[in-house]
Amino acid sequence: MQTVGIVGVGLIGGSFGLALRKAGFSGTILGVSSQRSLDQARERGAIDRGATLEEAAGASDLLFLSQPISGILETLRRLDTLVRPEALVTDAGSTKRAIVEEAERCLRRCTFLGGHPMAGKELRGAGAADADLFRGRPWILTSTPDHPVATEFREWIGLFGARGIILDAAQHDRLVAWSSHLPQLASTALASLLRDRAPDAAGIAGPGLLDSTRLAMSSFDLWRDILDTNQTEISAALDAYIEKLRALRGDFETEFEKGSEFARSLRERK
Amino acid sequence: MQTVGIVGVGLIGGSFGLALRKAGFSGTILGVSSQRSLDQARERGAIDRGATLEEAAGASDLLFLSQPISGILETLRRLDTLVRPEALVTDAGSTKRAIVEEAERCLRRCTFLGGHPMAGKELRGAGAADADLFRGRPWILTSTPDHPVATEFREWIGLFGARGIILDAAQHDRLVAWSSHLPQLASTALASLLRDRAPDAAGIAGPGLLDSTRLAMSSFDLWRDILDTNQTEISAALDAYIEKLRALRGDFETEFEKGSEFARSLRERK
Repeated sequence: MQTVGIVGVGLIGGSFGLALRKAGFSGTILGVSSQRSLDQARERGAIDRGATLEEAAGASDLLFLSQPISGILETLRRLDTLVRPEALVTDAGSTKRAIVEEAERCLRRCTFLGGHPMAGKELRGAGAADADLFRGRPWILTSTPDHPVATEFREWIGLFGARGIILDAAQHDRLVAWSSHLPQLASTALASLLRDRAPDAAGIAGPGLLDSTRLAMSSFDLWRDILDTNQTEISAALDAYIEKLRALRGDFETEFEKGSEFARSLRERK
Repeated sequence: MQTVGIVGVGLIGGSFGLALRKAGFSGTILGVSSQRSLDQARERGAIDRGATLEEAAGASDLLFLSQPISGILETLRRLDTLVRPEALVTDAGSTKRAIVEEAERCLRRCTFLGGHPMAGKELRGAGAADADLFRGRPWILTSTPDHPVATEFREWIGLFGARGIILDAAQHDRLVAWSSHLPQLASTALASLLRDRAPDAAGIAGPGLLDSTRLAMSSFDLWRDILDTNQTEISAALDAYIEKLRALRGDFETEFEKGSEFARSLRERK
């Protein structure tokens, strides 16, 4: 691939550009974003220059959509007449079913590969972009298209130090409902409840409460689309969590043992 | 005070001895514990020597009970005939009502002051003791007895760099139910649920899940007594959390805003 277009040059898009450069990509990187993001990204070396969606889509072998989910859906609806037929379009959206379905419906002239690099940090924007953001992290892909750019794209992901994992969109959305969306809601609910019922608890809070409320600092801007596009799986996980909290009182010891076993197994994988 | 007796020389008891020494205490520190703990504590310089409860109680101006809660309750039942009348007995138990009530019932010959240094770390035992464990942390005291050793004890706490906070036993137990016991149960329930329902989620877990399951690694040994002695407050907090999780779906945006506000306010205090 010679030209890459990054649509939405924030933390993820900017880090993708930096990671490509660090891994040795010598082609052109175009950015489609707000002027402020483009300026930041160019300054960091994450893109060569800004472009309109039309220009970027017409020139790119790989289009990387790293907007919020609703932005990705909107871009997919505009893209089919703009892309080169031999191009690969991929994305970094946090849920996959809605995006893969929209791509199947709208993108008929080129190939689409759903993706989700499981990486991030508290800071947002291209100014916080990091060439090593994906190192050691899973990068989920929803299929394995037989397509030259897709093959090359997977090689670049490997060079970033990420672990490519194939999961179809439904499997992905189910897994992240439990491993990411439920922990977010558990933290948000805990923090919101403490604000309602025990704001003075803050004065005696220990490191455990800080851990438990770290996710609660997440911006709803990022979560609105996730909650909208994964409602069924999230509701099922939330119901199961409520049921577990209810059952906890019946046998604290067993639940502590099971919880401890899982928490330790998570860390052994690192 | 000339002689201090530490009953239960684990992480907290050992750290208390080290903190006293670092703050300039030049009297004798006796330890009452298992032989292994006494050996570790003496090696670290946290105590001068081991003693029986009878010896330590008969010699100490200050007795610091830093066993698990059930051990503290048991010690309180034995102590009244052993202590010096001018002594102060204090403790480091994680709940306060059961302990303060037992002290009122059993300790008639000397003065008792309930305490809870809000400090800890993942490692246990005197081997992990740390003279700075209490630095910057709250140290809750359940009353302000007019007693010379109590006055001196509060001065030592200040020298450790801890923040003395007066809360009666009921206020303490209510606050920690929300700020410490509920976060523990929320984390345990989440980790246990993931083990039951989505063990494969571990393969794609991000840093958020690690934060959310850190408390779940806690040992039930430490929690059995806490859950036993703060049942009413914990049940109320758990019920309110279940209710909040249920209500969350009605207005995610408001709950995210409230949660974020509380989580940030916790950090601004640091």
